[in-house]
Amino acid sequence: MEQALTYLQQHREEHLQELNDFLKLKSVSSLSEHKQDLRDTAQWLKEAFHRAGLETVEVIETAKHPVVYAEWLGAGPEAKTILVYGHYDVQPVDPLHLWETEPFEPTIRDNKLYARGASDDKGQTFMHVKAVEAMLKTEGKLPFNVKFLVEGEEEIGSPNLDTFVEQEKDRLAADVLIISDTPMLEKGKPAICTGLRGLAAIELKLKGTKGDLHSGLYGGAVQNSLHALVQLLGTMRNDSGKIMVEGFYDGIEELSTEEKESIAALGSGDDSMKAEVGVDELFGEPGYTARERTWIRPTLEINGLFGGFQGEGVKTVIPAEATAKITCRLVPGQDPIDILEKIEAHVKANTPPGVTVETERHDTGKPFAAPVTDEAFAAAARAYERVYHTEVAYTRMGGSIPVVETFDTQLHIPIVLMGFGLPSENFHAPNEHFHLENYDKGLETILAFWDEL
Amino acid sequence: MEQALTYLQQHREEHLQELNDFLKLKSVSSLSEHKQDLRDTAQWLKEAFHRAGLETVEVIETAKHPVVYAEWLGAGPEAKTILVYGHYDVQPVDPLHLWETEPFEPTIRDNKLYARGASDDKGQTFMHVKAVEAMLKTEGKLPFNVKFLVEGEEEIGSPNLDTFVEQEKDRLAADVLIISDTPMLEKGKPAICTGLRGLAAIELKLKGTKGDLHSGLYGGAVQNSLHALVQLLGTMRNDSGKIMVEGFYDGIEELSTEEKESIAALGSGDDSMKAEVGVDELFGEPGYTARERTWIRPTLEINGLFGGFQGEGVKTVIPAEATAKITCRLVPGQDPIDILEKIEAHVKANTPPGVTVETERHDTGKPFAAPVTDEAFAAAARAYERVYHTEVAYTRMGGSIPVVETFDTQLHIPIVLMGFGLPSENFHAPNEHFHLENYDKGLETILAFWDEL
Repeated sequence: MEQALTYLQQHREEHLQELNDFLKLKSVSSLSEHKQDLRDTAQWLKEAFHRAGLETVEVIETAKHPVVYAEWLGAGPEAKTILVYGHYDVQPVDPLHLWETEPFEPTIRDNKLYARGASDDKGQTFMHVKAVEAMLKTEGKLPFNVKFLVEGEEEIGSPNLDTFVEQEKDRLAADVLIISDTPMLEKGKPAICTGLRGLAAIELKLKGTKGDLHSGLYGGAVQNSLHALVQLLGTMRNDSGKIMVEGFYDGIEELSTEEKESIAALGSGDDSMKAEVGVDELFGEPGYTARERTWIRPTLEINGLFGGFQGEGVKTVIPAEATAKITCRLVPGQDPIDILEKIEAHVKANTPPGVTVETERHDTGKPFAAPVTDEAFAAAARAYERVYHTEVAYTRMGGSIPVVETFDTQLHIPIVLMGFGLPSENFHAPNEHFHLENYDKGLETILAFWDEL
Repeated sequence: MEQALTYLQQHREEHLQELNDFLKLKSVSSLSEHKQDLRDTAQWLKEAFHRAGLETVEVIETAKHPVVYAEWLGAGPEAKTILVYGHYDVQPVDPLHLWETEPFEPTIRDNKLYARGASDDKGQTFMHVKAVEAMLKTEGKLPFNVKFLVEGEEEIGSPNLDTFVEQEKDRLAADVLIISDTPMLEKGKPAICTGLRGLAAIELKLKGTKGDLHSGLYGGAVQNSLHALVQLLGTMRNDSGKIMVEGFYDGIEELSTEEKESIAALGSGDDSMKAEVGVDELFGEPGYTARERTWIRPTLEINGLFGGFQGEGVKTVIPAEATAKITCRLVPGQDPIDILEKIEAHVKANTPPGVTVETERHDTGKPFAAPVTDEAFAAAARAYERVYHTEVAYTRMGGSIPVVETFDTQLHIPIVLMGFGLPSENFHAPNEHFHLENYDKGLETILAFWDEL
């Protein structure tokens, strides 16, 4: 392990340059204009695996963006096998004007690497490749077999990966699954994540009059699609932040006393969140702390809203069409399809007069939570503690990694969510970045984890 | 008059070609990128007045877009003077994809001239120029003096014209003011408009967190600016369409029994409006017909709403900013500044937690209504009846011509609102057009009006 660490230190600049090349590729999975960029990124990754010393690497087509699979099975059939999951796709970059430097031109400022995907999840996936490379280049072998599954559809809800995992479960067979796509609790405080929220996305398109109208000639006498949308959306959440879609909270699993206490022991998280997001007051479902609201309670959020005139000044128009984009974050006990059905029923029951509403379902992902009883978790905890010199926190994450629930039900192996990002690193937002301190410590932690395992 | 009519018939194609040149100029007053187009249009108009035989023509700068003033005073100081008001600016053209032909490439289909401004108001202003030209070219003179005031800021609420009219009221002195910028009641049924709604425009900008956030990591624990905007806007109108801004309906003037009866005699207008806008059900303030809602009741309409992700698919983001553009149409007894103050107070009192709201005032225009007792109205009615062979309707218009109220208070002359457009001609909307039947009959009506006067 010492040799591998030295190798990583000696090749640090070169590796960061390589990571830059990875980050420059515009692998925005939700936008069809980037289809080829996704393919180019998968191809780049294939070559990166080859450079790292993994001989068997395959770019596997799916209905949308390809999966990259790599393996090194040199430890033999008796040895343990580690499966690493990551994703090479990224979120869209708009609003572009809020980025201090270009999202696809990686820049280091203040020992932080700024780029879309720097933290979520190219940077963290890359670290696992480099850790394997360090071992293979210095020791010539690993003490276990390793398999990598890196997908290009995580940010759109992994629509094709469930099927892939089901079909390829023999190939993916392993003793433990490692994922680095969850944040640490805070700077200097590593975390093992024990639960993820699920996702359910839906778009509402309202249509009123056959075309936009003059607000003088018709104003007051016809339904305005924007007012109708406001009215409809207003029925979905009450003023204190509770979701009012009927049955939305049904069936949510209670936490164990142990987990409740463990979360409570971490504090409310209110102050650090206020600082991170730059507000004086938080807001959300009454009766819960910020940490509980993001970890163990579901949400319904409008992510985009538009209709009518968006130019400067005034246009006296009654817009004929209005759109809202909505996603829900779900917790164990909720099913994404069931939630989408409930929203559709709610829309139907609450459509204002004078408009029609079409709903379009988008991504879904099931929530996940699992006990941390396997010895792999203890090994991960010891590894973190060796490098960060502090006790690891057991957390949940408000975000979603949709395929995790599928891994859980298909592979039946412990899933260790050990990430190296920080909550303040602007995942999905302008100025995403990755603290290089955690790049270095993270590489060391990965090596220590193998050592402990 | 017969000679003038013959002249117009003989030069019809040439004049329509000239009108096309007028319509091709992209004089969108609300967009600063068209600043030079507005100047070019004013210049074009100056030359058009010269071609028509008006010797004194002036392009007069204002703080924004220039005014074009023209006069022919050859009838001498003893003769009556007619002042014609019109505007050469137009509304924005978006959404462009809904136009069947380009908005600034005039096209005739089915005897209708399609272009932005064809009806509102370049086409109608142009008719008055051509009517004067026909007289001057055939008779060599007019039986009265004529003055033209054509502005470039009507569609943005005439911010500089009030001052201009106040300062230049001697130059504008006249016996009657004619405006063709209001619609006929319906095809074949001409109308004299006796009242216009006023306008008050305001923009709301909400700011929540310091930047867009990951909806997984923060969702549920911070205010979402789009939800907050929905909540705020939801307080402004109730579900049946009544405006809930405190004091909004205060002080509205009661109609005279005579005018109430006259409006009632024209019918509810519901069926024709349904057909025009393509809906099965109308919607609006309870207790009023479509005609009443658009003519004598005020409105508050969201004209534009936007925030967050607008691309295809999904972006799991909590948007930091959200914007709503609002305009009100006002009726006599309401004051635009007072209404803006009431909206600002309402916003302040109803700002949801976790966001701040900035309001920006835009255009205002006072409502107008006047009795039609002057003999000029009778002359206009007879002129219409000579050409259209049907009784004229006395209407109000739901739209605004902000400067009319200023003309009223500054010039103290009868204001005859005699338009030739049809309600179905898509003013302010895609596929604006002008029925050429009313171009021909309108020219004849203008000449007949002079004859009757």
